[in-house]
Amino acid sequence: MSTQTLDLGRTSAAETRESVANFLEKFLTEKKEKAVLPQAERLPQILAEFLTGGKLIRPLLTVTGWVAAGGARDSEQVVQVAASLEMFHAFALIHDDIMDHSELRRGRPTAHRQLSADQQGSGARHFGVGAAILLGDLAFTWSDEILHRADLTPVQFASVFPVISEMRSEVMLGQYLDLRGTGNPTDDVESTLTVSRYKTAKYTVERPLHIGAALAGAGLGTMDVFTAYAIPLGEAFQLRDDLLGVYGDARTTGKSHLDDLRVGKNTTLVALALRAADPGQAALLHELIGNPSLDEAGAEQVRKIFAETGAKDTVEEMIENRYRESVEALDGAPFAAEAIHALQDLARNATRRTS
Amino acid sequence: MSTQTLDLGRTSAAETRESVANFLEKFLTEKKEKAVLPQAERLPQILAEFLTGGKLIRPLLTVTGWVAAGGARDSEQVVQVAASLEMFHAFALIHDDIMDHSELRRGRPTAHRQLSADQQGSGARHFGVGAAILLGDLAFTWSDEILHRADLTPVQFASVFPVISEMRSEVMLGQYLDLRGTGNPTDDVESTLTVSRYKTAKYTVERPLHIGAALAGAGLGTMDVFTAYAIPLGEAFQLRDDLLGVYGDARTTGKSHLDDLRVGKNTTLVALALRAADPGQAALLHELIGNPSLDEAGAEQVRKIFAETGAKDTVEEMIENRYRESVEALDGAPFAAEAIHALQDLARNATRRTS
Repeated sequence: MSTQTLDLGRTSAAETRESVANFLEKFLTEKKEKAVLPQAERLPQILAEFLTGGKLIRPLLTVTGWVAAGGARDSEQVVQVAASLEMFHAFALIHDDIMDHSELRRGRPTAHRQLSADQQGSGARHFGVGAAILLGDLAFTWSDEILHRADLTPVQFASVFPVISEMRSEVMLGQYLDLRGTGNPTDDVESTLTVSRYKTAKYTVERPLHIGAALAGAGLGTMDVFTAYAIPLGEAFQLRDDLLGVYGDARTTGKSHLDDLRVGKNTTLVALALRAADPGQAALLHELIGNPSLDEAGAEQVRKIFAETGAKDTVEEMIENRYRESVEALDGAPFAAEAIHALQDLARNATRRTS
Repeated sequence: MSTQTLDLGRTSAAETRESVANFLEKFLTEKKEKAVLPQAERLPQILAEFLTGGKLIRPLLTVTGWVAAGGARDSEQVVQVAASLEMFHAFALIHDDIMDHSELRRGRPTAHRQLSADQQGSGARHFGVGAAILLGDLAFTWSDEILHRADLTPVQFASVFPVISEMRSEVMLGQYLDLRGTGNPTDDVESTLTVSRYKTAKYTVERPLHIGAALAGAGLGTMDVFTAYAIPLGEAFQLRDDLLGVYGDARTTGKSHLDDLRVGKNTTLVALALRAADPGQAALLHELIGNPSLDEAGAEQVRKIFAETGAKDTVEEMIENRYRESVEALDGAPFAAEAIHALQDLARNATRRTS
């Protein structure tokens, strides 16, 4: 992402990232220093590490929504609200990684794996999971604390809070449906797209824009434009994620490209392949996807079927169509040119990324 | 608990319980009917069931703190804040039960066990745990939503929120320390009491009183009286819980009296027994406590050592001393006589309960 085209006045993307990261670092340093329970300092420590290396896409979108809706530049308020969303995202990822049995996140062992290493003996794994549940809970608590420290006016708070609350429920319910489908892949493409809509499109793109815009006092018209832009873009973002989950390079994604297959994630890619598969291919997919000890050779077989059934190409096409739909939604939007450019850039980068 | 002595004007304990329970039932019915994702209706359904049968001790203390600090009777606000704490407690229990491998809660299978039954095959257990993590997360989200719907004035909110946030962190950090000690019991009595202070005394007694009082605009003097009352009472409450965890009748506690021993919970009772044990007794305790397949006969052996080492009697004595200290803290407190009576009753019931 070039700084130039994302230059939202003085609040460029790079500056937004830096402001949010600095705020979170300071917040967690304070939590370590003025600890309620100093014996538990390991938790803010792991969280601080966890928070470095994220893409900070939700904070960027929050600031973009704010600027597009006419919010003043250099606002400490919007930075804090954006930081609160990033902290919430840490919560969501830490819990997701437990549910998905993930080993790697942002190039490091996942939180439950790091915490397992703190305990010895047969209970270590269980301890790691329990402590990571608590670490996630703490991140949720602290994200709420950051939100309340942002000194919003009562009117701002009343506009923003219902959207944040809706966002929290949506991502949890989306993740629940995702989990329910995991390990039992089907050819039901529609239901994989419903999961993407809640778990990603609304959570990652639509709600952060809405939150920034609500903070700036935007009306329903602005919200609708953001929805029209965000839903296809968010679906495309998830479809790209599904491809990276199978084809990505761990050195750039920070995640193993075996995790999704091993856990049997019911992605749109998998559903499309099952829909187009002949009986032999379908049997092989059912055997390999969801097998916790799947190796590189097995993954290669799966990838071969994704290519042969045309599923991979279809997903690329779906991404392209959604990308275009998303950018078209900006036509005639009553936003400053700089905000339009930022949103166009974000759409391009989110759908064409390699990490 | 008699209705008479707990009669806080028209807001008696029974009425408080009923108001809170009704509010939560209505809230969850609305969540089911206007579901964000109707396919996920199972989650509010389980939560509604989970919320029936609780002792509602935190809501009662919230209302008591409010009335003691001069809050007006029949306030819908305080009922909603109390309901928000009870919903938060559901979150905490659902996650705790996962960490503690508990099988029973309030006489029913724990949430993760109920959710496991929704899935077939080898992944069922893992699904149950993941879905219960999400159910807990959702309860947290909804507890926050209830708090914000309570229509507090900005001044009330600014007084109450920091206490709520502190309470959330305290219980999570206390639970983390508890988890870290579990499976590896020691004779460190002090550290078991630190865990009780954070996980129970502050969370169950002190903070609910503070929250009710803050809502009514109480000053620091009132807060200090509540702290002096709450900390010994809360420790006594936890010590009683530790005894019930080993000696309680599942028909009245709703929990198995093998769970704590099987998971190897490092309670004050266990620490005292280890401190006083001879080498033979200590070896036996280490062998039996934390053994996941401990049976009734093994538990009997443990109970025998708790008696022989005097640990059981010491815990009873500690409860009695703390009970007295707690009630004495009320001497000369500037509260209405009815509030003092309610607090005295609560202290008696919390330390002498059988469930």
